[in-house]
Amino acid sequence: MSLFEAKLEKIELGAVEIRAPILQSTRQQHGFAHAGLTFALGDSAAGYSALSFMNQGNEVLTTEMKINLLRPGKGQYLIARGRVIKHGKTLVVAAADVFAEEYDTEELIATLLGTLIATNP
Amino acid sequence: MSLFEAKLEKIELGAVEIRAPILQSTRQQHGFAHAGLTFALGDSAAGYSALSFMNQGNEVLTTEMKINLLRPGKGQYLIARGRVIKHGKTLVVAAADVFAEEYDTEELIATLLGTLIATNP
Amino acid sequence: MSLFEAKLEKIELGAVEIRAPILQSTRQQHGFAHAGLTFALGDSAAGYSALSFMNQGNEVLTTEMKINLLRPGKGQYLIARGRVIKHGKTLVVAAADVFAEEYDTEELIATLLGTLIATNP
Amino acid sequence: MSLFEAKLEKIELGAVEIRAPILQSTRQQHGFAHAGLTFALGDSAAGYSALSFMNQGNEVLTTEMKINLLRPGKGQYLIARGRVIKHGKTLVVAAADVFAEEYDTEELIATLLGTLIATNP
Repeated sequence: MSLFEAKLEKIELGAVEIRAPILQSTRQQHGFAHAGLTFALGDSAAGYSALSFMNQGNEVLTTEMKINLLRPGKGQYLIARGRVIKHGKTLVVAAADVFAEEYDTEELIATLLGTLIATNP
Repeated sequence: MSLFEAKLEKIELGAVEIRAPILQSTRQQHGFAHAGLTFALGDSAAGYSALSFMNQGNEVLTTEMKINLLRPGKGQYLIARGRVIKHGKTLVVAAADVFAEEYDTEELIATLLGTLIATNP
Repeated sequence: MSLFEAKLEKIELGAVEIRAPILQSTRQQHGFAHAGLTFALGDSAAGYSALSFMNQGNEVLTTEMKINLLRPGKGQYLIARGRVIKHGKTLVVAAADVFAEEYDTEELIATLLGTLIATNP
Repeated sequence: MSLFEAKLEKIELGAVEIRAPILQSTRQQHGFAHAGLTFALGDSAAGYSALSFMNQGNEVLTTEMKINLLRPGKGQYLIARGRVIKHGKTLVVAAADVFAEEYDTEELIATLLGTLIATNP
């Protein structure tokens, strides 16, 4: 996340917000946020929301994640909001929405749905 | 891709190979390749394989992509191999496998399946 | 849908509800709703919600759909609620939640996220 | 599977084939195989291929499955071929391709990629 200068803005039980600038280095050829950045933020938001249900010291790994890219990531910032859909003993199903912030306007640019697994390090 | 020092190693009709070092900046907390890197390479390999079917000057955008993460990305390099499953007039379905290279051994660490759309810029 | 005795209970712009009994023939070995039924209802609810944005006479086809199965489908009925996430000129991204109804209680058993394409027959 | 008159044609370690007629009751409005049938066969083929790695008496449940629908299911039969991509202690990642058979010709109509979990009944 530090490569992208991403910041964890909010962390509540099952709901997380991550914010990152769309840097020159993470834009694609047309100047929009690269899909890799959008995925990384959405996946992290889903992961942290899963983690918010775990005991301290636990970790989560993504086992599968699907992203639907809806619009170009146009603006200055990306904001990813993760939420838990179901947390079981082993597996957590979580979702995330990613928004592009252009000046004062937010636009939904991607939605993710995936599975994370708890690991005891 | 330049952020990750990725190189397009091979490009044939419907089949592409991308190779990138696992840099210090793209490793996660345990020293393995970050899922964001694995996704970005796999997605790019799928995209370039779709592009290999297009007329020059065309572009492709990922509309949706799913990744199943199978093993930790352990080693010095990631190699992503993309292939086209079906190319239609508007949509291309493509897949990619991502391997971690540790010294002389390759191990499958992720598989991706998704849809790309042709855009005429 | 008639094979499953499914009924379209509600149809609003971008939001649809389908209800079907869990028949003896659509239960799996443990007596729960078969994943095929859960998928078919969720996919149909997503499809009808996409269709609600179209001009009359248009049709939609699913191009890709992902289902996360969360809990066994226990009870007498399945209820699938579809909603549109983004409708573009060609592609519609839609989601659906599937609930099992056991007497008076509803439980979320699956969530779907996918893409549909408009076709002019 | 009996509802669809499906038959398990071949079962080898990690590779399975299921065959089902496209019945009048499982065709959609244009006479092609319904997506629900295509999904159910592909999911079953993935599931049986996962099961072929398990000890006797074990069962598998699909936790998530994604289908990309490539072409209309035109013909007399559907054939689903499942294969295991990775089998771990808890989770199995498996894939399936579904073909429509029209007289003597097979055509790939869908591809699936998903995760199954072993359960000890």
